[in-house]
Amino acid sequence: MQRAIQPHRVVVVGGGFGGLEVTRALHRAPIHITLIDRRNFHLFQPLLYQVATGSLSPANIAAPLRSVLRRQRNCTVLLGEVGGVDPRRHRLVLDDDELPFDTLVLAAGATHSYFGRSEWATAAPGLKTLEDAIDIRRRIYVAFETAERESDPLRREHLLTFVIIGGGPTGTELAGALAEICRYTLRRDFRVIRPRDARIILLDAGERLLPSYSPRTSEQTSRTLRNLGVQVGVGCKVLHVDATGVDVATPDGRFFIHAETVLWAAGVEATPLGRKIAAALTLDVDPAGRLPVLPDLSLPGYPDIFAIGDMAHCRDERGSPLPGLAPVAQQQGRHVARLIRNRCKGQTKAAPFRYANRGTMATVGRGVAAAQVGNYTSFGFFAWLLWLFVHLLQIVQFQNRVLVLLQWSWSYITWNRSARLITNMHPVERRHQRAHQLDQHAGGQQRESIGRTARL
Amino acid sequence: MQRAIQPHRVVVVGGGFGGLEVTRALHRAPIHITLIDRRNFHLFQPLLYQVATGSLSPANIAAPLRSVLRRQRNCTVLLGEVGGVDPRRHRLVLDDDELPFDTLVLAAGATHSYFGRSEWATAAPGLKTLEDAIDIRRRIYVAFETAERESDPLRREHLLTFVIIGGGPTGTELAGALAEICRYTLRRDFRVIRPRDARIILLDAGERLLPSYSPRTSEQTSRTLRNLGVQVGVGCKVLHVDATGVDVATPDGRFFIHAETVLWAAGVEATPLGRKIAAALTLDVDPAGRLPVLPDLSLPGYPDIFAIGDMAHCRDERGSPLPGLAPVAQQQGRHVARLIRNRCKGQTKAAPFRYANRGTMATVGRGVAAAQVGNYTSFGFFAWLLWLFVHLLQIVQFQNRVLVLLQWSWSYITWNRSARLITNMHPVERRHQRAHQLDQHAGGQQRESIGRTARL
Repeated sequence: MQRAIQPHRVVVVGGGFGGLEVTRALHRAPIHITLIDRRNFHLFQPLLYQVATGSLSPANIAAPLRSVLRRQRNCTVLLGEVGGVDPRRHRLVLDDDELPFDTLVLAAGATHSYFGRSEWATAAPGLKTLEDAIDIRRRIYVAFETAERESDPLRREHLLTFVIIGGGPTGTELAGALAEICRYTLRRDFRVIRPRDARIILLDAGERLLPSYSPRTSEQTSRTLRNLGVQVGVGCKVLHVDATGVDVATPDGRFFIHAETVLWAAGVEATPLGRKIAAALTLDVDPAGRLPVLPDLSLPGYPDIFAIGDMAHCRDERGSPLPGLAPVAQQQGRHVARLIRNRCKGQTKAAPFRYANRGTMATVGRGVAAAQVGNYTSFGFFAWLLWLFVHLLQIVQFQNRVLVLLQWSWSYITWNRSARLITNMHPVERRHQRAHQLDQHAGGQQRESIGRTARL
Repeated sequence: MQRAIQPHRVVVVGGGFGGLEVTRALHRAPIHITLIDRRNFHLFQPLLYQVATGSLSPANIAAPLRSVLRRQRNCTVLLGEVGGVDPRRHRLVLDDDELPFDTLVLAAGATHSYFGRSEWATAAPGLKTLEDAIDIRRRIYVAFETAERESDPLRREHLLTFVIIGGGPTGTELAGALAEICRYTLRRDFRVIRPRDARIILLDAGERLLPSYSPRTSEQTSRTLRNLGVQVGVGCKVLHVDATGVDVATPDGRFFIHAETVLWAAGVEATPLGRKIAAALTLDVDPAGRLPVLPDLSLPGYPDIFAIGDMAHCRDERGSPLPGLAPVAQQQGRHVARLIRNRCKGQTKAAPFRYANRGTMATVGRGVAAAQVGNYTSFGFFAWLLWLFVHLLQIVQFQNRVLVLLQWSWSYITWNRSARLITNMHPVERRHQRAHQLDQHAGGQQRESIGRTARL
């Protein structure tokens, strides 16, 4: 009788695009994988803005990790919080436990970055988790509801001003979706306010929207958004954000924009876990909190610990950092899985990771998207169909693909958004928040003397 | 030129089955209706247990009130909290405003009743709102996740014990759905625990389950649930509930059931608003907090104020109180609307309300339901098809009907439940809660000496 060999133990932290891909790519390997995540589901982040604007339900873009991996018998899923790592003992430290590993893959992703101004987070929530999306959805629809009941025309205007900070794909997509809500979805829903009078302002500190695309695409995107009624302000640096609005430095001077709903889409950084682990391993993170990696994606000095996705600071052949996109994380995941399989077979030679850029895409509005595949760019309906197709295929569970397609078709035909529920709101809380805003509002009025009220 | 006559102003409090029905039935009347609700959606409560067990998404059973009523030009929807009523000045008092009315319809529904033991609410949440459903969904799936990580077999057993208090339709439906989750949905999802070993205990103080149905139906329901693995305990009076379990007096003695998940489906009472309004109008509410009504559903002494649905204490011809069902509220809504229309035409004779009982239904499990239409009872697959058909037709928005049907078909074929997300949980919170439970758990052990551990 042969003695059973203890299988190689791989621990994967994070069930996002990167972590799930590592796990799945080790499907048939004689390896035991433990996938640990703080949430019990894989989230399809590219469609998070559709939950935030009430087009899709949370469950449509989330798939329970256990359900996704139920047939992969060499994998255990754990719901848990990772506290750190003990590299010498090869152990991952959990909130109330420890997990031994032979190989560790860090794929815990990113959170929003306020560039050191974390006090802005309350006034300008970012969009990274399902709870963020539900919170933003509530803020948007509560703003309309409060405006409908507000008798002061000035405050009504402030309630119907929405500022989105950050002109990357998330900001652009949010602005486009918000404009459509005001113009079409809510058109007949109110009796006092006219939702199409709402102002949607998209601010970016850079020279153009969607900087990772061609300048022509940026121009087309701006034009499309402007046609939808979005006020696009590029070269606008945000100086301050609070519950009453945004203080902006523009090429034309300094403005204060009164707005009760401000959304943050300006920057991301690695989760705090990255810094903790870097400290434990005496490594230095980059300014965005990402871990340094060798060309094979292992951490310097720790050949058994890998970092992938938004947690890794990785550069392409030309030395520019890789973007925080799902395909990057997925390709890195497959790369690390291949490496682990090879090591188990005794092959220690590690090939460097190379990102194969198959293109990027962003929707701008109903039936319009921007796509960039190598040097080929496409803007308009065809790119939108491509976007639709690619995103539907990527959604993890087949049921969700069908549900999302159905809801999209429905929204496209009826212009409606059915998932616009205001949940987790206590009316008393709302009243307090409102009183608080009114107080701050008085403060904001004074501040106006510094600049002038913006009409970008 | 004729001078425009100020239209009759109707204010409806609550956008549930009753309130929505009044509003819709006044569709063509020369009346102005204001529908006020604390939530921005109509909730299809009969399917709430399916959200709580992860079969459907919140948005599937909720329809934005504005969207439902967008074409009804004589109606304004307001999101707001009602504080009371000033009957002399004919004004409804809101949190920060007042609303004048000519006729007021109170339809604010019910909340759960702990029969004076409101301290049980934390340990045993009830199921009345979407937030309740999401909370229960989280508790159920967190229990499985925690059990998977628990090394102490005794505590694992307590984590996998689910007690449902109340053997009415909600309790029965929850127990059936939970049993299916353990037996089928989660069958392959875990590596350490076996979900089918989970204990599901349904307790009721009365003699039989579903007391509003025939004794034969109750018997069949018990048998079906037992076949699914549910332990049914009738004649079991709950003495105490806390985070460690339930103390029960049964015909065989007193037991303490260790269970970390306890759900409350035992009783409802009118919302606190009912009591406030009764105090303002110097009326006495019944023990369940419901307002007394005259045969035409107006409040005694206040012909311009009506109460319907779960807020009204209403009796049928034989003197027995009407049940808290959607059809009752809807028929009452139509009755009040007819009355208002007649009054506007100058007809002051008010016909008494009569409830036409068209039957009741409850699902017991996959493909099994109980239906009672007059003296005709049906139990099994046919009743289940009927249940499906009736509930689908009743869902307010067509899109949701299609989505629900699709998700039901999917679940039926694959045995899966896709909406089992654990949201709104902070891992730190969870850890604290757990430590807390462990403390209490120690207390529970001592208490065991009073009775003995139940194996019902």
